[in-house]
Amino acid sequence: MDENCGRCRVVIEGVQPQIDGGRFPIKRVNGETVQVQADIFADGHDKLSCRLLYRHQNDDRWLESPMQPAVNDRWQGEFRVSDLGRYLYTVEAWVDSFRTWRTDLMKRLDAQQDVSIDLLIGAGLVESAAQRAGGPDANRLREGARLMREGASLEARTSIALDDELARLVSSYPEYGLATRFEKELVVVVDREKARFSSWYELFPRSCSGQPGRHGTFRDCANWLPYIASMGFDVLYLPPIHPIGRQFRKGKNNVVTATASDVGSPWAIGSEEGGHKAIHPGLGTLEDFRYLIAKAEEFGIEIALDIALQCTPDHPYVREHPEWFRKRPDGCIQYAENPPKKYQDIYPINFETENWPALWQELKSVLEFWLEQGARIFRVDNPHTKSFYLWEWVIGKIKESHPEVIFLAEAFTRPRVMYRLAKLGFSQSYTYFTWRNTKEDLTDYFRELTCTAIKEYFRPNLWPNTPDILPEYLQVGGRPAFMVRLVLAATLGSNYGIYGPAFELCENTPLQPGSEEYLDSEKYELKVWDVKSPRNLKDFIARVNSIRRENPALQRDRTLRFHATDNPLLLCYSKASEDLSNVIVVVVNLDAFHRQVGWINLDLESLGLHPRQAFQAHDLLSGGRFLWSGSRNYVELVPDSLPAHIFRLRKRLHTEKDFDYYL
Amino acid sequence: MDENCGRCRVVIEGVQPQIDGGRFPIKRVNGETVQVQADIFADGHDKLSCRLLYRHQNDDRWLESPMQPAVNDRWQGEFRVSDLGRYLYTVEAWVDSFRTWRTDLMKRLDAQQDVSIDLLIGAGLVESAAQRAGGPDANRLREGARLMREGASLEARTSIALDDELARLVSSYPEYGLATRFEKELVVVVDREKARFSSWYELFPRSCSGQPGRHGTFRDCANWLPYIASMGFDVLYLPPIHPIGRQFRKGKNNVVTATASDVGSPWAIGSEEGGHKAIHPGLGTLEDFRYLIAKAEEFGIEIALDIALQCTPDHPYVREHPEWFRKRPDGCIQYAENPPKKYQDIYPINFETENWPALWQELKSVLEFWLEQGARIFRVDNPHTKSFYLWEWVIGKIKESHPEVIFLAEAFTRPRVMYRLAKLGFSQSYTYFTWRNTKEDLTDYFRELTCTAIKEYFRPNLWPNTPDILPEYLQVGGRPAFMVRLVLAATLGSNYGIYGPAFELCENTPLQPGSEEYLDSEKYELKVWDVKSPRNLKDFIARVNSIRRENPALQRDRTLRFHATDNPLLLCYSKASEDLSNVIVVVVNLDAFHRQVGWINLDLESLGLHPRQAFQAHDLLSGGRFLWSGSRNYVELVPDSLPAHIFRLRKRLHTEKDFDYYL
Repeated sequence: MDENCGRCRVVIEGVQPQIDGGRFPIKRVNGETVQVQADIFADGHDKLSCRLLYRHQNDDRWLESPMQPAVNDRWQGEFRVSDLGRYLYTVEAWVDSFRTWRTDLMKRLDAQQDVSIDLLIGAGLVESAAQRAGGPDANRLREGARLMREGASLEARTSIALDDELARLVSSYPEYGLATRFEKELVVVVDREKARFSSWYELFPRSCSGQPGRHGTFRDCANWLPYIASMGFDVLYLPPIHPIGRQFRKGKNNVVTATASDVGSPWAIGSEEGGHKAIHPGLGTLEDFRYLIAKAEEFGIEIALDIALQCTPDHPYVREHPEWFRKRPDGCIQYAENPPKKYQDIYPINFETENWPALWQELKSVLEFWLEQGARIFRVDNPHTKSFYLWEWVIGKIKESHPEVIFLAEAFTRPRVMYRLAKLGFSQSYTYFTWRNTKEDLTDYFRELTCTAIKEYFRPNLWPNTPDILPEYLQVGGRPAFMVRLVLAATLGSNYGIYGPAFELCENTPLQPGSEEYLDSEKYELKVWDVKSPRNLKDFIARVNSIRRENPALQRDRTLRFHATDNPLLLCYSKASEDLSNVIVVVVNLDAFHRQVGWINLDLESLGLHPRQAFQAHDLLSGGRFLWSGSRNYVELVPDSLPAHIFRLRKRLHTEKDFDYYL
Repeated sequence: MDENCGRCRVVIEGVQPQIDGGRFPIKRVNGETVQVQADIFADGHDKLSCRLLYRHQNDDRWLESPMQPAVNDRWQGEFRVSDLGRYLYTVEAWVDSFRTWRTDLMKRLDAQQDVSIDLLIGAGLVESAAQRAGGPDANRLREGARLMREGASLEARTSIALDDELARLVSSYPEYGLATRFEKELVVVVDREKARFSSWYELFPRSCSGQPGRHGTFRDCANWLPYIASMGFDVLYLPPIHPIGRQFRKGKNNVVTATASDVGSPWAIGSEEGGHKAIHPGLGTLEDFRYLIAKAEEFGIEIALDIALQCTPDHPYVREHPEWFRKRPDGCIQYAENPPKKYQDIYPINFETENWPALWQELKSVLEFWLEQGARIFRVDNPHTKSFYLWEWVIGKIKESHPEVIFLAEAFTRPRVMYRLAKLGFSQSYTYFTWRNTKEDLTDYFRELTCTAIKEYFRPNLWPNTPDILPEYLQVGGRPAFMVRLVLAATLGSNYGIYGPAFELCENTPLQPGSEEYLDSEKYELKVWDVKSPRNLKDFIARVNSIRRENPALQRDRTLRFHATDNPLLLCYSKASEDLSNVIVVVVNLDAFHRQVGWINLDLESLGLHPRQAFQAHDLLSGGRFLWSGSRNYVELVPDSLPAHIFRLRKRLHTEKDFDYYL
């Protein structure tokens, strides 16, 4: 046993935030604070002092921040993260002998007891602080101790003992000798701000030529940048850009046999032209790709690449690493199946391969290759069908050298699996938003995401559509449905994205009734998009994205709060900046067909509003301004013209008191 | 990296029960089951198998119990604990290749696909099971594999492949090679049944002589055993039995100066006659103490001793171990204080002493000394004013050799401190029950104790009074108040106790108005109790304790459930045995003054009752039987005669269908 371990008396437990007993880090972005709470107490009634310790992983020195008692033995403190990477944090607490003594002294004086011996005890405590202090402070403390012992009178000695400056000085040199430190060092991963606030646009570069039948290139794609930027997106996500397999290539609308002119699915990766480190020849060269990245940067747009860890039969890995695949007794390699369905164009990797170390290194080298080309954002395709342990390892490794990299997990699967992937290191995650349409469903789900411990590690990225998913709501609701879903995605989520131009052109024809696949899906053919069409929602989208940029409230999810409405088709929620200087209230008509009216009932206190103070609700979508007072307010939303309000609340209204001559 | 660690694909998380990430054990009593749940999943869609592993700490071999899937990736299993001490448990899971393959095979057959290659794959899996099996099973498996490969026809091969017996055999030899084991081994402390179900009676042996002014002895105390047993108590708890200090001894009613005849407080431990290992000469000898223990055993009663870790100025420790106390600058030892109050008769131990190892060993030796005399239950006085770490260590040490020992924590302090003491190892704990009188307060508190994770480690022991606490409810409510509080304590808590004979004699005079101290408290003087008085509640108490003994439902707390009533002064709750064969419904009139009537609304499903089936509510207190049907039932309770019902529900009512000739 450690020589002092039996002398420590303070207990620290219930430290929050803490994911799975500290097994996984929490997440923050640069500049945010981490608020830490803990239950801290000792035997008896002595006063305690507590500090929060934190340090960047690359820095050996702990920094500290004081913790204050809240209620019921709960203490809290906070620290700000200012560098990317990993911070460690923990909590330390100790019996504060001097403060205990000083509090007791005051009680004794109130009871008019003789405190002469007590002053000697206190002087001893000040003396030991002097031993811990250096320089002038040590001298000042020693002098204080001396005066407490030898002052001219009991009054003089007492007055020194109760001197606030002395107390402050003593507390600067605490006795950590018997301090308890929480048994774990917890981790927070600090990402750059884009991990929290981003607007994604998914585009197939091969459809960018604008000419029927001509395969689009990266340079064609670069021509779309002004259009994408004009809508206000800052991430351009490209489906896989690699050579596409020939064997068992799928034709248009996913038919089993392709014709010679069929381009195949970008997710069928690998041909004799190369695999995950190669570029589809039709798209251009590595140089063209770097040009696209550079050009995008000029427009404030980052390129996100798709990491789809699977191979076609033509992929070089199949030749070079047959041991990474399962072999069937007939000598063939096992293709992908979900019996009775067969996907002969895909060879899934066998993550149980004995040669997994080489496989893991190869995936890492793929990511490093694209990092070298300038990519800093990866959208990972179906990560839940690949080894969880692999993701934890590879994301950890990549972020060691490149903490600025963002990983988006495209996992539409069971809730615990999705949350686990986020814990393992994915910076952002796809969500069930795509299928949440009713007030109850949206409220329940977003409360789960933003009001529980899930918020500490899972950053939602909301997509109203993807190339795989044209949800029923969009199929049937027409243009208003697209507007509704856009507003919901862009305001419920500080991270969101659309698959365009299918989205802004309100493309809504499914492969067949009941299917969520697009008819003539871009996954299997080149498209020419008529973005000049008058049905294009680009101006509406631009307006919404510009509201997002101008309002810090919409750049974070943790302040999301739902407010009651008396109409089940009206959804009302708010977001606010931490200091409540920017407060946004959104009201959405979930009915894409009918005008809906009703009363919303705002929780004014949470919005920093006084129940009797009038305030202005300024609709940033329509420009309308409403003078409201009190929590209950009337709204009316018409699908075709205005399916939603995005109000900025302005608290400060001018009154007669603003005039100089009022008084 | 371990050579296989990258090949494992299963994730195990959210294992419950688990206290503070496994830092503390959960608690059970012998014969109980531990139900374990965990979130378990892997990448992809393969079938998983999971097992619960458990073993007694003294046994190196893991035992196993299968786990079944519940919903949403949650699995559950259970094991029974059958020996005292510590059990370890953890969870293991693996991809079940054969079951995955077999499920897929059925889908392929349904789709009329050619399965000849698949049968070869399956045969390979059966073959590897054969390699893991031994003896006849290996041969049977090999034969199965052979027939799957070489059977007479595809139909014959398929039929072997789908044979249930073969599947069962394969699953008996799982492939654990790539199994994931949960990273922690969790602990359950198994106590004897008395830790869960006990009825305590606190008695000052020095008041047992029956003659004014004569100090009672252990032999006098033994004469009380028939009386105590007749009321149905099975633990007799004695305040400290050690020599009492002389210096600064307190007089009657805690006055500061004692007279020569004052006996002092038993909690002022230590005189020249000895300390924590000595017996107060007035009580008798060690031999007398052993006699009391033996005699009590004849009545089915165990003696519980009080461990009060503090000393008077006369205690031998003060001489022998001055370093265990704080010294003041005037050379005196620091007495106990809560400024401005001074307790000069008590020297608190300084748990920060540098010589803590000797102190810890001494406390351990005190417990061992009384274990040698036959004590097996300790009630620890104010454990929250002593070092937490000391309790964890000493309880752990004692229970290593004596797992049957029960420790009750007498901590009336802040909630987190009380819960921490339970986590550290105390088998039972005092509670806030003493001050919880209203329906809302009782409901909230007992839900917290029995429906949250707290139930895994905190065993409530309910006391309506103690020598320190005569609660206001008892002071003002007269005899009905005592009956109400007795019924509540004895039925809300499977562990409860009273400080007698003050309780059964309805002693209710406080030291002064507003005080919870007894007037002429037994803590400071000898008493003569008139237990023959007609106001003695002994028959009522005997009845309640006999109901507790006869009804397993009342011997556990985890099944406690509150039911709605339409009268805020009527409290209704139920307890049931695990199999619902014994169901008790208690209705209490919380108003000690007025008759209260109302309707209770039973949650029938939780009681195993059909909403339309009539049942009998048999009041075990009054003997009355009510024929009830449906959830809403009328009750009427009169404080003086019947302040509570303790119903046993009898589901099976005789009907005409019970007659042989009915059909």
